[in-house]
Amino acid sequence: MIAVLKRGTTKQQLDHLLSWLKNMSLDVHVSEGQEFTVLGLIGDTSRVDMELLGSLEIVESVKRVSEPFKQANRKFHPNDSIIDAGGVKIGSGYFAMIAGPCSVETEEQIIAVAQSVKESGAQILRGGAFKPRTSPYAFQGLKGEGIRLLLEAKKATGLPIITEIMNIRSLDLFEDVDIIQVGARNMQNFDLLQELGKTHKPILLKRGLANTLQELLMSAEYIMSEGNENIILCERGIRTYETYTRNTLDLSAVPVLHELTHLPVVVDPSHATGRASLVPSMAVAAAAAGADGIMVEVHNNPACALCDGAQSLNLEQFAQLQQAVERVREAIK
Amino acid sequence: MIAVLKRGTTKQQLDHLLSWLKNMSLDVHVSEGQEFTVLGLIGDTSRVDMELLGSLEIVESVKRVSEPFKQANRKFHPNDSIIDAGGVKIGSGYFAMIAGPCSVETEEQIIAVAQSVKESGAQILRGGAFKPRTSPYAFQGLKGEGIRLLLEAKKATGLPIITEIMNIRSLDLFEDVDIIQVGARNMQNFDLLQELGKTHKPILLKRGLANTLQELLMSAEYIMSEGNENIILCERGIRTYETYTRNTLDLSAVPVLHELTHLPVVVDPSHATGRASLVPSMAVAAAAAGADGIMVEVHNNPACALCDGAQSLNLEQFAQLQQAVERVREAIK
Amino acid sequence: MIAVLKRGTTKQQLDHLLSWLKNMSLDVHVSEGQEFTVLGLIGDTSRVDMELLGSLEIVESVKRVSEPFKQANRKFHPNDSIIDAGGVKIGSGYFAMIAGPCSVETEEQIIAVAQSVKESGAQILRGGAFKPRTSPYAFQGLKGEGIRLLLEAKKATGLPIITEIMNIRSLDLFEDVDIIQVGARNMQNFDLLQELGKTHKPILLKRGLANTLQELLMSAEYIMSEGNENIILCERGIRTYETYTRNTLDLSAVPVLHELTHLPVVVDPSHATGRASLVPSMAVAAAAAGADGIMVEVHNNPACALCDGAQSLNLEQFAQLQQAVERVREAIK
Amino acid sequence: MIAVLKRGTTKQQLDHLLSWLKNMSLDVHVSEGQEFTVLGLIGDTSRVDMELLGSLEIVESVKRVSEPFKQANRKFHPNDSIIDAGGVKIGSGYFAMIAGPCSVETEEQIIAVAQSVKESGAQILRGGAFKPRTSPYAFQGLKGEGIRLLLEAKKATGLPIITEIMNIRSLDLFEDVDIIQVGARNMQNFDLLQELGKTHKPILLKRGLANTLQELLMSAEYIMSEGNENIILCERGIRTYETYTRNTLDLSAVPVLHELTHLPVVVDPSHATGRASLVPSMAVAAAAAGADGIMVEVHNNPACALCDGAQSLNLEQFAQLQQAVERVREAIK
Repeated sequence: MIAVLKRGTTKQQLDHLLSWLKNMSLDVHVSEGQEFTVLGLIGDTSRVDMELLGSLEIVESVKRVSEPFKQANRKFHPNDSIIDAGGVKIGSGYFAMIAGPCSVETEEQIIAVAQSVKESGAQILRGGAFKPRTSPYAFQGLKGEGIRLLLEAKKATGLPIITEIMNIRSLDLFEDVDIIQVGARNMQNFDLLQELGKTHKPILLKRGLANTLQELLMSAEYIMSEGNENIILCERGIRTYETYTRNTLDLSAVPVLHELTHLPVVVDPSHATGRASLVPSMAVAAAAAGADGIMVEVHNNPACALCDGAQSLNLEQFAQLQQAVERVREAIK
Repeated sequence: MIAVLKRGTTKQQLDHLLSWLKNMSLDVHVSEGQEFTVLGLIGDTSRVDMELLGSLEIVESVKRVSEPFKQANRKFHPNDSIIDAGGVKIGSGYFAMIAGPCSVETEEQIIAVAQSVKESGAQILRGGAFKPRTSPYAFQGLKGEGIRLLLEAKKATGLPIITEIMNIRSLDLFEDVDIIQVGARNMQNFDLLQELGKTHKPILLKRGLANTLQELLMSAEYIMSEGNENIILCERGIRTYETYTRNTLDLSAVPVLHELTHLPVVVDPSHATGRASLVPSMAVAAAAAGADGIMVEVHNNPACALCDGAQSLNLEQFAQLQQAVERVREAIK
Repeated sequence: MIAVLKRGTTKQQLDHLLSWLKNMSLDVHVSEGQEFTVLGLIGDTSRVDMELLGSLEIVESVKRVSEPFKQANRKFHPNDSIIDAGGVKIGSGYFAMIAGPCSVETEEQIIAVAQSVKESGAQILRGGAFKPRTSPYAFQGLKGEGIRLLLEAKKATGLPIITEIMNIRSLDLFEDVDIIQVGARNMQNFDLLQELGKTHKPILLKRGLANTLQELLMSAEYIMSEGNENIILCERGIRTYETYTRNTLDLSAVPVLHELTHLPVVVDPSHATGRASLVPSMAVAAAAAGADGIMVEVHNNPACALCDGAQSLNLEQFAQLQQAVERVREAIK
Repeated sequence: MIAVLKRGTTKQQLDHLLSWLKNMSLDVHVSEGQEFTVLGLIGDTSRVDMELLGSLEIVESVKRVSEPFKQANRKFHPNDSIIDAGGVKIGSGYFAMIAGPCSVETEEQIIAVAQSVKESGAQILRGGAFKPRTSPYAFQGLKGEGIRLLLEAKKATGLPIITEIMNIRSLDLFEDVDIIQVGARNMQNFDLLQELGKTHKPILLKRGLANTLQELLMSAEYIMSEGNENIILCERGIRTYETYTRNTLDLSAVPVLHELTHLPVVVDPSHATGRASLVPSMAVAAAAAGADGIMVEVHNNPACALCDGAQSLNLEQFAQLQQAVERVREAIK
């Protein structure tokens, strides 16, 4: 970490700062120039509160040279992590297609979708039981009953399941869930992250609507710092001023995260775009960008045209997508 | 709510949709044009899942005519709400200055700040006990002990206190707290909002870093729908690409919220700007814009220059700001 | 176009509005509901100033049903356009790799790069002559001399060339340039667009840093409305709060634009990411997303490590990328 | 300027870089640490291309200690600049209210508005003659005829006038215009800025929709570097994801710019909010924040309710606003 001091910093102020930094077990390399003084902080700077340091009256600016995340950092863990989710591996060349409906509705629905996506090549079943909704008046999901239905589908097909948690108090319900999803709105629900860190469950951590990739990694670090290293990162679109798509899918997150961390990276083109017509091209683009998995919404229900959410693929579209993704993955090997 | 149907929608699809809408107790006014068909939905559309409706294959687009929030809506509650926080009123002409340190550190510190800001004219004491931090390695606040020290300061000065909650499991600790703050990162922690809705405590709800004002009101609605109407909204800056300030303070939120809702609106210029030098001008601007209160960070500690956070005013700066705010409030009467 | 009128609109105001709209040769379908009145505007609404209409006191909101762009609109021109740039075709299955240095520096440099990228498979040579720079003190390019050197490289290799125009007064210099580039900062320099519309040159129009896709299409419409239909659209990243990459590449722009317009879409991963290490994965992702071309920065100069811009690939990296892109394009056929 | 070099930089690479920097007449202070090497660049770093330096393969990161703008920089010009616009002074305590219609329509209209706003206390008349419009099919203003009408209003009232330029080729028409406005979309039209730098006209430079304050100052620097120091900066709202207001007015721009530069700062609440109901509170907030002037849209035309743009105040509303602004300015003295 580099700190540039303001012109006019007194000897006394400098000494005061140096003793404060040394108390944090840091070595400090002072370089006094004519126009500015630069401090090089050496040691475990992940514990330094960069914002506090930068806010001191004598400090002009602070710059990290090393990243504030440690356990998630590829520098200290050069090999890709492989996450095992109910027998399915993700990361380091293992690629997983995760598919299923937005919300679990009925046993028939979830089993039918599960069987079909499995046949098409999906390895993991997704389905919403607890649904975070902007409005308190909107449908909030089947909750515990939704998880029960997912477990039925798991029993019927053998597919591991992933579903979202919204509150640590419902953790017991997730005992047989294979991957626990933390939604975008909870990416910085630090208490939830810490509690999930005490489990050994694989966690799929979604990037928040307006969070940087470094903040995503700091949230992964919250989980890892409690002992749980089974983390899958998920890019699902960020908020911009563009209105044609629901969010803006930031596919550069895939290679950036692969540079910064050893954790696998999954892409969710369904929530990012909000439009089924865009999902296939964004899914193959994600595969081309090197994603370790793709999570897409798939529905059945030929009878009920009304229920066809515009962001969900139907069973046949998913089958075609699966093949396109496989071809693209072959092409970039 | 207006729904525009796609060209080529069949009679059967239209009937299907109409019966679905009528099941939700809505009257539907169909206007079939040559180029498009428009449905006018009349009734309690706050229960209509606009996103789901818009995602149906036959629907071109959906537009709300009435807002999705009800209890927070000024249309149904034309008079300004007045929130009583430990005897201090906020809203409808009652203005509150809320001041105190970023973090509660020691009994001496918090009492000294409380006494000084009270003398300068502040009506409510703020202080962080549970601190949401991006990094798991950063100082997370004194937690329960911090609340205890705030209560000491309240006893010493008579000032009501406000402090942030991060997890519903710590609610018991907030029994004697006068206003419970929900931070920006928890604005859409819907479970927390619902639990706070079951209390009768005044809640100060901060706008999320990338949330629209309508989303802020929907989060207020989450609390209100459970029975707690004591809500104070807080604008604290949104995330943009500008880097000179920590966030971008959106002062137009004040008159916009006053148009949309009867709830009082408080502005936090300290977190928004991240720089003490900008706080006074943004605080008086907030007062001029019609804010019902201002929340600023104030520190004492002349001895410890290191601890002077760049976003905190010192005691004397606060005293001057208090007077400037009062003069501006007089000017806009 | 749909206009929703405010409650309380008088008969007189409505009649006033209707006569105004009919003066614009629009048919208006009035649907008076109990709670709101909806106007359906039928005819050539591209001439209606939606913002003005929406700002009238009696208008609650306005919604376009049809897009405001006409000549660029796929609805009126269902087949993909094919742009011929000096004999190289782009669009409707014709794919072009555009490569070359950020700035033209010397004749040796530009010819060496041109020969190498041609050999690797590039079809068009790019190179900056007029450089838009944030600072007036930074190098602004070789200007006319840069174009002369590009023409030398074209003569030496047969590759068509593309370079950026910054001012209509330098148009004469572009006589032998095959594609004129309009940079992101000039996307809404409407006078420049109109003048380029009077030429018959292929124009590569870059999306502005904070412009929507509809605004990009409206800028294309500016050029087309003057008679020049030879337009290539270019996604080059938008500005967000993320700081690891220079901009955020919005690859969903590719399928969205293919839905909305018949014009070809090219992606520039070099400027979008600002980091050479991210360019290959974003380039293959762009190809997978269906881009009609990719524009990448490539440099030579093994001798001068200093000049290796972090966003430029070297000659060998480009050769490898070209092959990866071809494999991915084969995979998505 | 501080440059941090990557680990593993060789002696040869370092020497190469040092000689390159020294060729730019910079002194370089090398501080070799165990984990990183820091270069302190001393001298006129405004000419250093920070982006190029940062993109070198051996450079980890670059940080400016001094700002890249010089003539606009308060450090080198501590006193506020005062701009004289047709006899009206702006800056350093001189405050100007600028008012007038969005577009000049008729002689009657512009003279009536000019007389009324003058009577209410406005010092400068605004009116659009050349109108930048997103759509080529929308009304583009009366152009030269609009300027002629503005000059008639100037003759009738004595008010200096301000109007927007879109193309350097129309500069002759602006000979008797008192302040030339550069719109948000042209903030980085560098050729236009340089040409305006060759005149001695006061220039009102609007911040671009997605530009940082430093970029705004660099654009001012473009004008100043050609010799014209008569620049007024204007905050007019930036683009965010919020949809209730047209843009998000960033009032912290006022104190930030006052810290960074000696140039006066004007605020345009009409374009920023797009809603007349929000203009008065944002105008008084701008005055409270310390703005050197406010520019608001004002219309007359009681007869034509249709033409009442929602962002324009009527004559009486403006008269009231003028008084409120004066009271607030008195309060913050």
